[in-house]
Amino acid sequence: MTTEDTTTPRVNRRRFAGSVAAMGVVAAGAAALAPDGVRIVRETKADAAAPEAEHDHGGTTTSAAQTSNDMTADEMDAMHEEGVKAFPQATEGKGGMPLEYTEEDGVKVFNLTADAFQWEFQAGKYADAFGYNGVVPGPEIRVTEGDTIRVHLTNNLPESTAIHWHGVMVPNNMDGVPFITQPPIKPGETFTYEFPIREGNAGTHMYHSHNNSTEQVGKGLLGAFIIEPKDPSTRPEFDVEYTMILNDGPIGGYSINGKCFPATEPITVKLGQKLMMRFINEGQMIHPMHLHGMPMKVVAEDGYILDVPRMRDTILVDPGSRYEAIVEATELGAWAFHCHVLSHAESRHGMFGMVTVLFVEE
Amino acid sequence: MTTEDTTTPRVNRRRFAGSVAAMGVVAAGAAALAPDGVRIVRETKADAAAPEAEHDHGGTTTSAAQTSNDMTADEMDAMHEEGVKAFPQATEGKGGMPLEYTEEDGVKVFNLTADAFQWEFQAGKYADAFGYNGVVPGPEIRVTEGDTIRVHLTNNLPESTAIHWHGVMVPNNMDGVPFITQPPIKPGETFTYEFPIREGNAGTHMYHSHNNSTEQVGKGLLGAFIIEPKDPSTRPEFDVEYTMILNDGPIGGYSINGKCFPATEPITVKLGQKLMMRFINEGQMIHPMHLHGMPMKVVAEDGYILDVPRMRDTILVDPGSRYEAIVEATELGAWAFHCHVLSHAESRHGMFGMVTVLFVEE
Amino acid sequence: MTTEDTTTPRVNRRRFAGSVAAMGVVAAGAAALAPDGVRIVRETKADAAAPEAEHDHGGTTTSAAQTSNDMTADEMDAMHEEGVKAFPQATEGKGGMPLEYTEEDGVKVFNLTADAFQWEFQAGKYADAFGYNGVVPGPEIRVTEGDTIRVHLTNNLPESTAIHWHGVMVPNNMDGVPFITQPPIKPGETFTYEFPIREGNAGTHMYHSHNNSTEQVGKGLLGAFIIEPKDPSTRPEFDVEYTMILNDGPIGGYSINGKCFPATEPITVKLGQKLMMRFINEGQMIHPMHLHGMPMKVVAEDGYILDVPRMRDTILVDPGSRYEAIVEATELGAWAFHCHVLSHAESRHGMFGMVTVLFVEE
Repeated sequence: MTTEDTTTPRVNRRRFAGSVAAMGVVAAGAAALAPDGVRIVRETKADAAAPEAEHDHGGTTTSAAQTSNDMTADEMDAMHEEGVKAFPQATEGKGGMPLEYTEEDGVKVFNLTADAFQWEFQAGKYADAFGYNGVVPGPEIRVTEGDTIRVHLTNNLPESTAIHWHGVMVPNNMDGVPFITQPPIKPGETFTYEFPIREGNAGTHMYHSHNNSTEQVGKGLLGAFIIEPKDPSTRPEFDVEYTMILNDGPIGGYSINGKCFPATEPITVKLGQKLMMRFINEGQMIHPMHLHGMPMKVVAEDGYILDVPRMRDTILVDPGSRYEAIVEATELGAWAFHCHVLSHAESRHGMFGMVTVLFVEE
Repeated sequence: MTTEDTTTPRVNRRRFAGSVAAMGVVAAGAAALAPDGVRIVRETKADAAAPEAEHDHGGTTTSAAQTSNDMTADEMDAMHEEGVKAFPQATEGKGGMPLEYTEEDGVKVFNLTADAFQWEFQAGKYADAFGYNGVVPGPEIRVTEGDTIRVHLTNNLPESTAIHWHGVMVPNNMDGVPFITQPPIKPGETFTYEFPIREGNAGTHMYHSHNNSTEQVGKGLLGAFIIEPKDPSTRPEFDVEYTMILNDGPIGGYSINGKCFPATEPITVKLGQKLMMRFINEGQMIHPMHLHGMPMKVVAEDGYILDVPRMRDTILVDPGSRYEAIVEATELGAWAFHCHVLSHAESRHGMFGMVTVLFVEE
Repeated sequence: MTTEDTTTPRVNRRRFAGSVAAMGVVAAGAAALAPDGVRIVRETKADAAAPEAEHDHGGTTTSAAQTSNDMTADEMDAMHEEGVKAFPQATEGKGGMPLEYTEEDGVKVFNLTADAFQWEFQAGKYADAFGYNGVVPGPEIRVTEGDTIRVHLTNNLPESTAIHWHGVMVPNNMDGVPFITQPPIKPGETFTYEFPIREGNAGTHMYHSHNNSTEQVGKGLLGAFIIEPKDPSTRPEFDVEYTMILNDGPIGGYSINGKCFPATEPITVKLGQKLMMRFINEGQMIHPMHLHGMPMKVVAEDGYILDVPRMRDTILVDPGSRYEAIVEATELGAWAFHCHVLSHAESRHGMFGMVTVLFVEE
C-alpha cells in the first residue's frame, strides 16, 4: 500500500472556499441575512468556540466511525468541520474522462487495458484496484448512434476478464460473457470487440467486467458508455451534464466516481442552467440519491426516454440501472448531494463516502 | 433503562376487539360465514386447543426470534396469538401529533426542542432516544403554500445538531447542513429557521437532523412536514389521512411511527372512505409496504403529483423518499398492513416490528 | 441431508450445447465471425490452454466463493467453465407446474398440502424445505376472472400455517392471517379456502404462508397465482410466457424457481416471439434482474396494467411486488439473464445463484 502523498491537485480548492463565502455560510455565533432577506437570528447560550481538532481523522472511513463514541460535542464538530473544509480534497488520479479514439476506415477505434494498481480514493488512502487505463471509473466511452466502434482490450490483470456492454445492443458474440458468448480473455491477451451503435440505443449505459464480476467490478473495472442521439431533438435538452457512478465495494467503501468524501468532486453550474445528471450504480446496494434545494426531473431510465417524466428529490438508483435526470439550477448556493441511506454518508466523525456538493453560482 | 410501566392507554383496546369480532374472526375449530356468503369449512383433525402461553414473549423482538427453535406448534401459536391479542398495545408517548404554532406578524412560529430521553417503543421496552419535543417521530409540522414560517430549535442534546427540511424548498442558508449552510447548533443553543413556503411545494415532506444523522435520525430526530396546497383542487381528494413513518434504527428496530408491533397504531376507516396514506422512510433499508385486501393508488412521489398514477398492493418505500397513495376502503374487515421484507415483520414468535392493521368498518 | 443423486434429467442437456454451438461461441484462441459479419480478432499472447479442473466445485455456493483466493487464472476459468458447461444441470424436482383442479358445481377445486422435505436446489445439494405438494416453488394456480375457486390445504408440517393470497382480492376471512382473519391451521388439519375471482383482478399474483413467514416462505411455501383476464383484449398480447420466482432464503441462497445456477432452467424462445416475463420476489432483498441483449417493456405492476409502459434492461424486483414485462425476441443468441446485485450471481468460482440464460433461436 503506497502511503506517500504524490497527489497533484486537480481541482481548485479556492473555488469551494469562494463559493461558501458567496453563499453566506455564517461563522459560529454570527447573524446572517439570507439571500431573500429572511432574518436569521442565532442565539448562543453556550460556549460555541470550536477547539482545534486534536485528532487526525480528516479522511474518516466507516470503520473509523464505529470505533469511538466518547467524543465531546466540540470534538465531533471539529472533525465534521475538518472534513468539510478539506472538500474537495486533492487526490491522485481522476477517472471518467473521455476516452480518445482514432478513426480507421470509418470505425472509431478505442484502446483499453485492464490493470491492477493502487487507487487513492481519499487523500493518503489507497485501495487495491482493478481498472481500465489506470483509473476508476474507467474512461468514458462516448459515441453516436450510427457509429461503428472497435475496442481493443488488453488484459494486464493476473486473472481473466471480459467486457459486457451493459445497455448497448450488441451482436451476441460481442456480449462479453465468458463461456456463453466468448472465451475469457486471459492474462496477457488482447481481445477486440467490434459492433455498430444502433439507432434507438441512445442514452446512459455502462461497460464493465462480466468475469469474477463481484470482485472485478467492485475493484473498479467499470465505466460510463454514453450514446449520443443522431438526432438531438429526440432527447431532452440540457446545458451541462455530470455522470455520477456509484459503488460500494473495496474502493473506499461508498464512493462516487471512485472517490470518497471529502475527495469527491463538486458539481458547479451557473444559475439558470439545466444540468443533466446521469446516475449509474455499479455496486451491490441501493443508493437513493438526494439533492438538496431543487428537484430532479427523471427523463430516462436505462437510456429509454420516459413518456411521462417524474419529479423527485430522491432518486432510487439500483444496481445495474441508469437514470437520467434534469436539474434546473434555480437556487443559488452550496447544496448537499448524497445517498440518503445515511450510513453511506455521515457518521459521528462527520460526512464521508457518497457525498458531494452542487454549487449553483451566479 | 426505565422498566416500570407508567403508560397511559392512548388507544381503546376495545376497538380492536370489537373490530375483530365484527369481522368474524373465527375461534379455533369453528366454522364461519364470510361476508359475501362464501362457505368456509374448517376440519379439525388434530387437537387444536391452544395451551396458555408459558412464555413471556408478548413483546418479541428480532433478536429474541433468533434464540429459540425448539418450540412446539402450539407454543409458537400461543406466542403469535398473544402478540395479536395485545394489539394495539398501550405504551407511553405518541409522536406525530400536530405541532401548534403562534402567529407573529403573519408568520407562523413553531418551537422545537431536541432532547435525549427514554422512548417506550413496545410495552415495557425502552430505547435511548433523541427526539423533537420528547416524542418519536417528532410532532407533525403542517403548513400551507404561501405561509411564512419560523422555527426555533433549542438543542438540549449532548451533541450538536441541525435540521434539514427534506423536500421543502428553502433558501440555501436555511438548508440545515452544518459547515456547508450553517454552523452546527451546539448543546444549549437555539437556532431560528425562517422561510416562506413556496407555491408548488405542496405534499408530504420531512424534517430531520443533518448532523451525525445516521445516529441522530436513527434515534428519532425526525418528523413529517406536510404542506397543504393553497388551492386544494390541485391535489387528489381524500376523506381521511394517515402518515406512516418507517425506521429501522435503534428505536426498537423495525418501527412504524416510533412503535413496534403490537404497540403500533391501528388505522381505522369507514367503508367507502378514501384514505390518503403518506409513506415516509427515515431508515437505512427499503421497506416495501404491503396492504392486504385493497390496492393503493400512488398519486404523488416526493410531494410531486404523478401525471399518471399507478396502482400497487406493495409500495417500495426507499430511504429519503415519500409516497402518497389513496386507498378506497371498499372491503370490510381487519387487513394486515406490513413491510414485505418478511424478516421485518414476522418471526417464529409471531408478528413484530413493521406491522399494523387497517380496519374498514361499517 | 440426502446426498445420493437420484435425479431424473428433466431438461435436455443437448439443447444447451446445440444452442451454444449455433450461436458461435468460440473455442479458446479461435477467431469467429459475428452473425452480422463483424470481424472479431482475438490475439493470444499467453498460453490459453485451460487445464482440467482439479477442484470439484461445479456447484459452487456463495460460501464456497469466500473460502479461497489463491487460485490461478486458469483454475478460476476452469471452474467458471465447468459451471457453464453443467448448465442446465439436472436435478430432482421441478416446481411451478400448473396445478390441476376438478370442477364441483361450477367451482374449481384445488388440493394443496404443506410438506417438509429435502429439495435438491443444485445437483447433489439439498436443503431442508417446506413446500406445497412437494415442490419449490409450489405448483402454479391459474384461474380466470369470474371463476369461483376452492382450495383445500392440508398441513403436514410440524408447525401451524396459513395461506395469504397476495394480490388476490378475497373476503377478509379468506385472507390467511392467523389470529386476525382465521385461526392457524395446525399440524394435521385441513382448511378450505373458497372465494370468487373478481373481474379487474387479472395479472401475476402469488400465494404463500403468512405464519412464521420469514422461515416458511424462505423455505419454499410459496407459488405463483395467475389470474387470466375474462376478456384477453384487456391485457398485452404475447406468444410465450415464463414466471420467474426469486428467493434468497435457505433454499440454496439466491435462487430462481427453487434452483440455483447451473441448475436453473433456461428460457428458450423463437426469433420474433413476444415473451411475457412474470417476475415475483418472495425473498428479503431487492433483485434487479438484468436481461442481456434486448430490453423489457414493463406492462404491469402487481397485476395492474400500466397506463404508460416503461422500457428497462434491468427491472428492480422488490419483495412482495410483481412485474410483468414483454421481451420482443429480436436478437439471436444465448443471452445471460441474472440479478445485477453481482454478489448474487458471480464469484471467483464462476456464476452461481440467480443466473439463467435466454436462448433466442431461429
